[in-house]
Amino acid sequence: MRTLNVALGARAYPIHIGGSLLDRPELILPHLKTRRVVIVTNDVVGPLYLERLQSGLKALDVGVGTVVLPDGECHKDWQTLNLIFDALLGDRCERSTTLIALGGGVVGDMGGFAAACYQRGMPFIQVPTTLLAQVDSSVGGKTAINHPLGKNMIGAFYQPRLVLADTSVLNTLPPRELAAGLAEVIKYGLIRDPEFLEWLEINLDRLLEREPEALAFAIERSCSNKAEVVAADETEQGERALLNLGHTFGHAIEAGLGYGVCLHGEAVAIGTMMAAELSLRLGWLSATELARIESLFRRAGLPVTGPKLGVERYLDLMSHDKKVEAGRLRLVLLRGLGKAVIHADSPAADLAAAIEARCA
Amino acid sequence: MRTLNVALGARAYPIHIGGSLLDRPELILPHLKTRRVVIVTNDVVGPLYLERLQSGLKALDVGVGTVVLPDGECHKDWQTLNLIFDALLGDRCERSTTLIALGGGVVGDMGGFAAACYQRGMPFIQVPTTLLAQVDSSVGGKTAINHPLGKNMIGAFYQPRLVLADTSVLNTLPPRELAAGLAEVIKYGLIRDPEFLEWLEINLDRLLEREPEALAFAIERSCSNKAEVVAADETEQGERALLNLGHTFGHAIEAGLGYGVCLHGEAVAIGTMMAAELSLRLGWLSATELARIESLFRRAGLPVTGPKLGVERYLDLMSHDKKVEAGRLRLVLLRGLGKAVIHADSPAADLAAAIEARCA
Repeated sequence: MRTLNVALGARAYPIHIGGSLLDRPELILPHLKTRRVVIVTNDVVGPLYLERLQSGLKALDVGVGTVVLPDGECHKDWQTLNLIFDALLGDRCERSTTLIALGGGVVGDMGGFAAACYQRGMPFIQVPTTLLAQVDSSVGGKTAINHPLGKNMIGAFYQPRLVLADTSVLNTLPPRELAAGLAEVIKYGLIRDPEFLEWLEINLDRLLEREPEALAFAIERSCSNKAEVVAADETEQGERALLNLGHTFGHAIEAGLGYGVCLHGEAVAIGTMMAAELSLRLGWLSATELARIESLFRRAGLPVTGPKLGVERYLDLMSHDKKVEAGRLRLVLLRGLGKAVIHADSPAADLAAAIEARCA
Repeated sequence: MRTLNVALGARAYPIHIGGSLLDRPELILPHLKTRRVVIVTNDVVGPLYLERLQSGLKALDVGVGTVVLPDGECHKDWQTLNLIFDALLGDRCERSTTLIALGGGVVGDMGGFAAACYQRGMPFIQVPTTLLAQVDSSVGGKTAINHPLGKNMIGAFYQPRLVLADTSVLNTLPPRELAAGLAEVIKYGLIRDPEFLEWLEINLDRLLEREPEALAFAIERSCSNKAEVVAADETEQGERALLNLGHTFGHAIEAGLGYGVCLHGEAVAIGTMMAAELSLRLGWLSATELARIESLFRRAGLPVTGPKLGVERYLDLMSHDKKVEAGRLRLVLLRGLGKAVIHADSPAADLAAAIEARCA
């Protein structure tokens, strides 16, 4: 087991990464406020892992309630969030009860937001079960639900007390979900870690074959990048926005297609290609560098072109982005491989051309 | 104009108290992040004061959007909260846009919670228009909506950047609402300010006659008490709970009758009498002291006995209270006038008798 620390002062917390951590509830115990938890999961992950986590905690004399949500991004809404509140209140959970999110990004985002709001804040632990959640969404305290007009529009910054990333559970992850997670892994290389990007180009096949050593390294390196950024800028006043490479385009694709049609990681891969196309047009990225990014995504099994929504529709959906400031779209672009920047004044023609270039 | 400061470090903010402050939008300007605001109000307060605030801000070149909610505690729910999110997204409000809550406690609680969640947090200003909101709910950052099983169960601690309390607007406040606000004013005297309690016993009639000098003093003294408690314990780990005198009983009454039947301040008055009855039975309060409290509430036009829900129903509803810890009900009781304490182990028979004693 490897342990990283997210350095956030009074809200600092550890990330444990390793095999079979689900069977080690003693790692959770020191982070509980009282011996009472509610595990929030979904109807795909629940049947696989809920019983193991639950019985382990019960054996340590912890009272365990459970909430099983319907699976999928299309359920990341008010109605489903209310199922959690109904259960917490129905079970008379106290504000000292700990909420454990067992699942992928959707479960983590909703569980975290429910924990942030229930009685104005209850303790919260992330047990991410997808690669995407292990390398990205479970770390850093962003929680949210979607609104028909925009992804993750209603939420809170609310840090967990512990992230427990059991790499063994990735063995049951469908290949498409593994690929979606790799999109966020590759993102860290692109925005701030060129050495890691080279490692990924060499070792991508090992990750696709789910070689435990390679996965553990990639997860730790990703979390370590994320922890550094989050510690420097918890509430995204500046640098943290760089973690959103490809996300403004990607969120437009997710909202435009209807949530759940395209996986978040897939949308991020397409969005990253659009950001790269725009960077190329601004003279910041060479054609060779763009080709290297495309090749890596393709090898990972990720899409590199988006749906034909029309440029106008893309721009309309992108105008709801949380990074919009004084009506100006602010995009994360690349000034070479391994260096992302925030840019506000892309010429409209270049932006449109970049989107067009990546619409299949 | 008097100005108090809520000392919360990086989240510190001023409370301005005075006549006709609605006509002084220049007091708001320095607290905006950009020259764009959305005013959230309701269909009772809006027709009276929205135009004045809106036109004043527009004259200072501030872009102003508005959201008018249906009035009343029964609308403090998800559905109504979503009206705010729909409007914010429909208007493409950015996370730098400021939300201004213009209204009483319900508008402030919902506006504040919407601001806490929109894009994970937008700037927020309180312009309270009821006595209750001016002396209590607008100060201290508690925001929330109700759940059928409990009041204020879903919410956030989220501080405003400014509280602007215009005492002139109290002239249009219905007498019943004025009385409800006085319940919270009297509360400060009872829990920690015996000198203020004596002042209230002498000057209550001046408040009921809405004498500006007297109102301004009572509001400032109340806010000053609240600001001290909040600065010492922002997220209610300890002392802040004392502000909840009468609230555990009161919330049970509000939920038991259905939200909106009884005003919050009325429920707090009844709840305070129940807490006083229990304190009497524990030997902490004399019959004379209890009579002084009852007399003050009666003079203010407040109810001093609650609905006959039955003791079992009271206890059931109270068991959802946010102060419940390890299954034990923790109540705010009085050890004399001007000194509140948190108490966890009231004998069941005394608690039942205290409730019975105050059920009409």
